[in-house]
Order: sequence, then C-alpha cells, then structure tokens
Amino acid sequence: MHLCELTTPALILDRGQLQRNLARMHRHIDALNTPIRPHLKTAKCIDVAELALAGRDRQITVSTVREAEYFFEGGIDDIFYAVGMVPAKVDRLARLQQRGARIRLTVDNVAMARAVSERAEALETCFDVLIEIDCDGHRAGMVPDDPALTTLGQALQDGGGTRLVGVMTHGGESYHCGTTGEIEAMAERERRAVLEAAGSLREAGLPCEVVSVGSTPTARYGQSLEGVTEIRPGVYMFYDLVMAGLGVCAVADIALSVLATVISHRRDKQWIITDAGWTALSRDRGTASQAVDQGYGLVTDLQGRPLDDLIVVSANQEHGIIADRRGGPVDFDRLPVGSCLRILPNHACATASAHTAYRVVDGGEQVLATWQRCAGW
Amino acid sequence: MHLCELTTPALILDRGQLQRNLARMHRHIDALNTPIRPHLKTAKCIDVAELALAGRDRQITVSTVREAEYFFEGGIDDIFYAVGMVPAKVDRLARLQQRGARIRLTVDNVAMARAVSERAEALETCFDVLIEIDCDGHRAGMVPDDPALTTLGQALQDGGGTRLVGVMTHGGESYHCGTTGEIEAMAERERRAVLEAAGSLREAGLPCEVVSVGSTPTARYGQSLEGVTEIRPGVYMFYDLVMAGLGVCAVADIALSVLATVISHRRDKQWIITDAGWTALSRDRGTASQAVDQGYGLVTDLQGRPLDDLIVVSANQEHGIIADRRGGPVDFDRLPVGSCLRILPNHACATASAHTAYRVVDGGEQVLATWQRCAGW
Repeated sequence: MHLCELTTPALILDRGQLQRNLARMHRHIDALNTPIRPHLKTAKCIDVAELALAGRDRQITVSTVREAEYFFEGGIDDIFYAVGMVPAKVDRLARLQQRGARIRLTVDNVAMARAVSERAEALETCFDVLIEIDCDGHRAGMVPDDPALTTLGQALQDGGGTRLVGVMTHGGESYHCGTTGEIEAMAERERRAVLEAAGSLREAGLPCEVVSVGSTPTARYGQSLEGVTEIRPGVYMFYDLVMAGLGVCAVADIALSVLATVISHRRDKQWIITDAGWTALSRDRGTASQAVDQGYGLVTDLQGRPLDDLIVVSANQEHGIIADRRGGPVDFDRLPVGSCLRILPNHACATASAHTAYRVVDGGEQVLATWQRCAGW
Repeated sequence: MHLCELTTPALILDRGQLQRNLARMHRHIDALNTPIRPHLKTAKCIDVAELALAGRDRQITVSTVREAEYFFEGGIDDIFYAVGMVPAKVDRLARLQQRGARIRLTVDNVAMARAVSERAEALETCFDVLIEIDCDGHRAGMVPDDPALTTLGQALQDGGGTRLVGVMTHGGESYHCGTTGEIEAMAERERRAVLEAAGSLREAGLPCEVVSVGSTPTARYGQSLEGVTEIRPGVYMFYDLVMAGLGVCAVADIALSVLATVISHRRDKQWIITDAGWTALSRDRGTASQAVDQGYGLVTDLQGRPLDDLIVVSANQEHGIIADRRGGPVDFDRLPVGSCLRILPNHACATASAHTAYRVVDGGEQVLATWQRCAGW
C-alpha cells in the first residue's frame, strides 16, 4: 500500500531510521560498558521493543500498569515501573508477578513504601524496589543527601512486600540544556546523585545492587557511567524536534512523523490547511523555548525531506495550519489540495500517544506493516 | 465501586452536571427556535450522544470518519462531517451511505469539490455538501464575499457525486473573546457571514436550504439565529476551564475531570506530585492567554470542589506537579500521599481525547457506569 492510500492523519514510523538510532545509542553505551533497560513509554509497541532488545538483555522500563501487562503478554518479564507506586496499582502488578514476571517498583517516601509493602504482602507477593532520587529538581524523588534516605531504605528492607534493591534517577532537566557541554555536565550530575545515595545506603548496611539512571540526552552525551548498572533512555529510538533542537540528533534522524492531507489553500493568508490537528500532532510545544521554534511540527515531503521553512503554525482539533516560519510566501503549487505531506513531531512521546498504531515504512512511500500500540493505564 | 478503587489517572464524567449543561443550552436555543446538531468530537461516546439527543432530532456533527462509523453503528444516521473532505476518506463514508446513513460533507474549494464528486460518483453514491465559509479568519473556508463562491456552488451542483445543500461556518475566534459582549458580537458575525453567502448562492439560482453555524460560546450568547437552520456546539456538554475563563460557564458547571493519586510530597518545593501527567490531562494550555492561567488544570477534592488555589503547574508524561498558583504554601495534610483528587481540564476535547472511557458519577464518589469513547480516524 502506498502512503497516500491511508486515511489521514496517520502515524508513520521509518523502520530503517529506527534501527540506525538504536545502533547509534548501542555503540555509545556499549563503549561505556553499561546495559540498557530501554524505556518503552515512547514506543508502547512490542514490535519496536523486539528491535530495541535484539541480542540484549530482555529488560525494560515502563510508566503505566497497562504497559507492564502489555509487554509481559508480549514475552518480556523483567519490567521496571519507573513512576512512584501507589497501593491501588499493586494488585494488577502482583498478578503479573504471580504469572512469572519480575516487576520492579520505585517510591520516594516512607508512607508510600509502607502502604505498598502492606498491599503486596496481603497479596502474598514481594516487589524489588528502587528508591527514586532527585538529581536536578525536576519532579519527584528524594535529594541524595536527605538524611531520611536510609530510613526509607530500611522501611523497604523491613517491609514484608518489598525488598530494597537500589536507587534510580531521571535527569529530566537535561531537556532544557543549552549546549551539549551542559548535557554532559547533567549526565555527570545524574550519575553522582545516584552514586551518593547508593553510598549512603551501603554505608548503613543496606543493599544497593541496582544504580539506574536515564534520559536520552544524558545517555547520549554521558562520558562515564562508572558505578551505574543500567541506563533507561526512551526517545532515542525515534528522536524528535526537541532532541534535534538540543543537538542530541539531527532532524534527518527523526524516525516518526504524521502523514496529513492538504484540505484547503488560503492564498489570502499564505496558509495551507491540513487534516492533522492537535489530536494527531499533540499540543506539545516543546520547541517553543528552544532557539528554533518549530510550531506544532516541521513539514516534509513524502520521503521525509523538510520543505523549506514550512511549519505547522497553529492546530485545531482536526485542522493544522501550515505556513512559512518567517511569514514569507508559500509555494502552493508544490502542495496542491489533495496532496499528502509528513510532519515531524516536537515530542515523539506526545505525538505517538495520540495514535493507536504505527504505519511502518523503510525510507520510501510504501507501507510495509502496521504495528499496534498499547494505550491507557 | 468507589472512585478511589480505580486505577489512576482516570477520566470522570458527572452525569448530573452533563444533564444540567444540556438543559441549559437547550433552553437557550429553543428560545431562539433553532434546532441543534450537536458536535460529538468532544464526547465521542454514544451514551453521551443519547442524552444530548433525547427528545430531539437525531442529527449530529462529527470530525473524523471513525466517529461517523461509530455513531452510525450506535443508531444515528444523519451525520455531518464538518472538516474539509478529501477523496481518500470518501470510500468509508460511501459505505455508510450504502448502509442507510445520510452523510453530509463540507469543502471550500473547487479542486476538492471535483475530486470528491468524482470519487463518490465512481462509488455510485452522492453526498449532500455544505460550502465552508470563513467568518473570522480562524482557519479554513471561503470568505463570504468571495466571487468564486457561486463557481464552487455550481461545481458541487454539477458534480455527479455531490449535491449543494447549503453553507456552514464555525466562529472559532470566539474562544479568544475578552467579554461576553464580544462573544455576542462574534455570534452575530458568524450568522451574518453565512447569511451573506447563502444570499449569493440563492441569487445565482443555487440551492441553499441549510445554513449552519456553531461554537459553544456563540451558541450560548447569540441573541438571534434568524436565517440559521441549525447550530453545532460541542463542548457545552462538559464545559471546561477555557469556557469558564471566557464567562461561558462557571467552574462548578464543568462535568469532566481527571482522577489522580498523590504519589509524593516535595515539602522542600511546596509541590504535591500525582500520577496524572500530560498523557492524562493533555498538553493543552488554553487558559495561558486568559486572565486566570489554570496551568494544566485546577485541583478539586473528590466531590469536585476546588481546593484553594491549587493548580497543576507542570506536567511530565505520567507525573503532574501541583502547587499553589501564587507560589504560596501548600497544606500537605489535606492531600496525604496515597490520597485521590480530581483535576478540572483546560480543554475538555483535548483531555477527553487522551482517554478510552469515562467513569460516570452523579455528584458523589461512587462510579455508576463506564462509558466507552471511540478513538482514531
């Protein structure tokens, strides 16, 4: 099937580019001698997971119970749920453990550690738990020098339904770095934060076999992973315009795009109107704070080549408005009414989450496969 | 089932409030003597549609082929697809017509009119078509005094697969009005734009039985619908913070919310962290340009009562950060780790589109039903 036969908007994944992105990340982290536990919150797709795990340990990271269930059904049983756990989610994860999965959790406070442990114990299961460490003030986590760290570690160790196995952090602020040098520094900060926390736990006689870090920018630019036992990048598989704006990839490396059809020309306004609105692109404006604001996405031809300076300047529910980024004239003849184009996303996780499946291409305009995504919680 | 037994995040719909919102809109438009053709792009749910249509003409508006198929399966056969048509979507809609649906389309240019007509004719069907009119420079449509209007009307009338039946517009700029007086003026502008276009078509001897307008703000504040044959609001069923900021509803009228669980307290930063990030709330920041910026949503207790000035100030994929809107201190004891809360959305369409189902309540904390939503295109 040719791309233009699809109902638009549609989510397009270039398999060849995906594989090149995987290979590049693997070269970098293999040189640093650290296993990867890819975060599948971006892909949410077993077919992508199989490519990402090929020839490697079958261990993954997820961000929802639904993802854990979906990937377990797909044959992956070593699963780290990297969002702070709550008791109401324990039951479904306990069922996965009873079916043979090894589910690892994270918490950052004693109250939750106890509540989760109690619920797990009542269900006659026990979870490995990592303490979440805040390395950069980004969101959750305990700061590495918090004196309550060992209290939390002990609570997990004492809990009948939990077992302390280590520490984890996510250098989310790396998304806001200005230079690759800053990303390198952030990667080092990420590493030092978990090493400090791990050191405190070990000094207190507590176990800490797992030291886990992860974000795509820091995974890509980290120069040392000494003391780290695994990294958890996710968006490196697809990349996106935010990553390109950060210097983590080139625009040509982006494997994900949204196919759209031109429904109207507004020559009076120098607008091209398409049927890809925010339901298809997401409302993510992650490039708005970068040097180059890509609007709601960068326009390419069907082969994925950027078209001059056309971006999606505005998005309604099912309409996208394309214009020249500087307000210059638009070459309407190149994108006639009825023609198709592709739009590179600001944020791959957000754009992909708006779709139920990937239409797979490999450098061309032929649809080679349809890969389903999991959805919900 | 009690709300707190749900896996969070979850989309909560208050049925009693939904019915009050429907009744209020019906009172207003019944007084103006104009039928409603509700836009179901917000709800995407047959259970909501049945409440909205109870005792009224079973005619609806949709924005995707998938919605058209879904509602036809649900027993609604008079369907207006109010986004510019493209030939690749004609086949599925033709199948619905062959099964007994009456599908109405819209276009705003001759090239597309001809392409759609040819495709429909090849499939041995014929669609009623409205010409899209631009009343406010919002996105697609022909301006009402465009001399090409009658050419387009004639092309639709001459096409073997199309039949001209009227004109439509959407006063989308009403979302950016500053006062209810401005909304009233926008409603009148919307009405005059389609009446002018209808007049030109009729003068040229072309048919124009349908004169269709619609947006929730203009539907709520329009003072006259003379000459208009139907209105197409959508978000009035649920309302949201953008509508409240516009003065179209009160915060207490909002029927939709997202249930979340507190996963962490960051007392050092005066943050409450929940498990409702942008996958659950959407990235919509529609209140950012209003007098009161609600962040990613306004926090309420389980009954739906706003909690002081707590808003979601930041959202990651599966984490939301709640803080006082002015940076003031947070009462952590009222929202302990593990407790649940609700978040009112900026934009009901965007937040709902992140979920596969509604959990239905009626003023309380008991889940009375689960209503599925349709998704995709």
